[in-house]
Amino acid sequence: MTYQIDPIANPELEAKIQHKIDLKTKPIGALGKLEHIAFQIGRIQQTENPKIEKPTIVVFAGDHGIATKGEVNPFPQEVTSQMVYNFINGGAAINIFSNTNNLSLKIVDAGVNHTFPNELDIINAKIDFGTKNYQEEPAMTLKQCEESFNKGSDIISKLKNEGTNTIGFGEMGISNTSSAALLMSYFTEIPISECVGSGTGLDNEGISRKQQILSNVYKKYNPQNALEAMAVFGGFEIAMISGAILKAAQLKMTIIIDGFIVTAALLAAQAINKNVLDYCVFAHNSNEKGHIKMLEFLNVNPLLSLGLRLGEGTGTALAIPLVQASVNFLNDMASFDSAGVSGETKD
Amino acid sequence: MTYQIDPIANPELEAKIQHKIDLKTKPIGALGKLEHIAFQIGRIQQTENPKIEKPTIVVFAGDHGIATKGEVNPFPQEVTSQMVYNFINGGAAINIFSNTNNLSLKIVDAGVNHTFPNELDIINAKIDFGTKNYQEEPAMTLKQCEESFNKGSDIISKLKNEGTNTIGFGEMGISNTSSAALLMSYFTEIPISECVGSGTGLDNEGISRKQQILSNVYKKYNPQNALEAMAVFGGFEIAMISGAILKAAQLKMTIIIDGFIVTAALLAAQAINKNVLDYCVFAHNSNEKGHIKMLEFLNVNPLLSLGLRLGEGTGTALAIPLVQASVNFLNDMASFDSAGVSGETKD
Repeated sequence: MTYQIDPIANPELEAKIQHKIDLKTKPIGALGKLEHIAFQIGRIQQTENPKIEKPTIVVFAGDHGIATKGEVNPFPQEVTSQMVYNFINGGAAINIFSNTNNLSLKIVDAGVNHTFPNELDIINAKIDFGTKNYQEEPAMTLKQCEESFNKGSDIISKLKNEGTNTIGFGEMGISNTSSAALLMSYFTEIPISECVGSGTGLDNEGISRKQQILSNVYKKYNPQNALEAMAVFGGFEIAMISGAILKAAQLKMTIIIDGFIVTAALLAAQAINKNVLDYCVFAHNSNEKGHIKMLEFLNVNPLLSLGLRLGEGTGTALAIPLVQASVNFLNDMASFDSAGVSGETKD
Repeated sequence: MTYQIDPIANPELEAKIQHKIDLKTKPIGALGKLEHIAFQIGRIQQTENPKIEKPTIVVFAGDHGIATKGEVNPFPQEVTSQMVYNFINGGAAINIFSNTNNLSLKIVDAGVNHTFPNELDIINAKIDFGTKNYQEEPAMTLKQCEESFNKGSDIISKLKNEGTNTIGFGEMGISNTSSAALLMSYFTEIPISECVGSGTGLDNEGISRKQQILSNVYKKYNPQNALEAMAVFGGFEIAMISGAILKAAQLKMTIIIDGFIVTAALLAAQAINKNVLDYCVFAHNSNEKGHIKMLEFLNVNPLLSLGLRLGEGTGTALAIPLVQASVNFLNDMASFDSAGVSGETKD
């Protein structure tokens, strides 16, 4: 599985974009992180006049074998399918935030343990009715893992053909913080105990139990590469997001990275092709314990820090207006010259 | 000058709002700061179903006597009026961000050293053609200061009558970080040297000079109350924002507080009536050095930290979608019951 992804370096264009930013009617650097985002998206789109087109959030839902035992999560597995219905009915946080910020929202069944009626507005990419419990056997086969990457990739190609150039990902899957913690430990080499957090709300005792269980799972396997790691530690929805990220970068889309689970998917994607990182804007710092260490590992600084720990792509949906504002100032703000504003007096 | 401002405490309503938040389809507390904002705006509006109506940014512009000497700021005084034209022509950062987020934008001449043609869409609240230089005499008379408060207050009453219930403030005034630093030192009792920062971009030598100059100014006066402090250290636009904040709180509006200058205006307002703080949402942590200490003094935690240091109300304009998202989730998100989603399994 290889993804050809162009690096975005282009010193001549970069100098032009930076010059355009610096001539705007503001002190140099006064728009902080928004200047970095404008610069990055100019590089991604290889233009001084980038545009955000049809920004879309794709929420991938999948079930996890370990959830059936109820040891690592306070919510029962059925909540995954119940929440998919909630997404379809417009009642979840991601629906509200997508509506607030005029984002298109797509829901994908990556492998929920439930059969949804065909007439519902769900993209059917089901691999299986949930993963296997990795306490006993790998979460999925290598073939299922490749299939997940490919289905994620196909969804992105279709969205790109429909005019989307800016994409964010969300996820729903009871126990998926466990998969994410295992993947985090594999890709960052941070001990598993430091990767495990409270998820949707475990107390300290619950966190200790989750650490012990996942530590045993981690020791049980010896994956040799990113695909094998994804197969054993799983998450159909996580593997699909990894594939989607790789394809989005290949298609030169701007990718807005959400919280703990989506960043775990990115860790796998960047292990396959580092260039993917050039295309990523980091939405927020989740309250899930391991996320800040993932961001440190990637050496990135996200836009928001709101204490969110919900997933679904909520941090991404909330960050997109800042991304839009960044691109808009680059395109629409007056320069000192065009506005007739005096520049700095040099001593 | 007194402002009757109701405190917002109402334990019965607060319990209802918190209960409504906790029944939403998400783990308890998973929306972090957005939950606090939803709770606060429910309290401000005294309802479980608050609404954001006609959110508006008012930018107050005024000139400063000290700017004519060019010692504390790298930009010449004329930039204040030039930037007002830029606001009117739609070319400034605050125009772009207001457009991005569908905010109404009003520009006020609080005391710019320039006569604007009547036909321009500027609210004329001019007190004088700039303040006096406080190196020599108080920036304004007490009468001018009261007049500034009253004019700010009147602008808010009019907006409230027109249907606005959520308001943010911006400012433009070359050298107004100097006024804000002096006011900060007065109201927080933090030494003036710690209140002085680089403003629109002074280098270290410039900052040392500004510290020395403002330290001398600070020692020259001995104001006995908030109004006297505002009169000597000035800023027509700052005094007008203080009056606007007090009136907005009196009218039970939600007030979104911007960066260093607007927070200096708030320091004066809360010294006049502490209850004003109940109505304030803090938009962002500016990169101007003193701002974080102001926020610490007020014991508040803002929504954004983007490294902005531009003023104009830009941080506020960028934060309003988060405020909107907070209110929207409270109103529109499904509850566990209404969505048929299972709650936590208790051990």
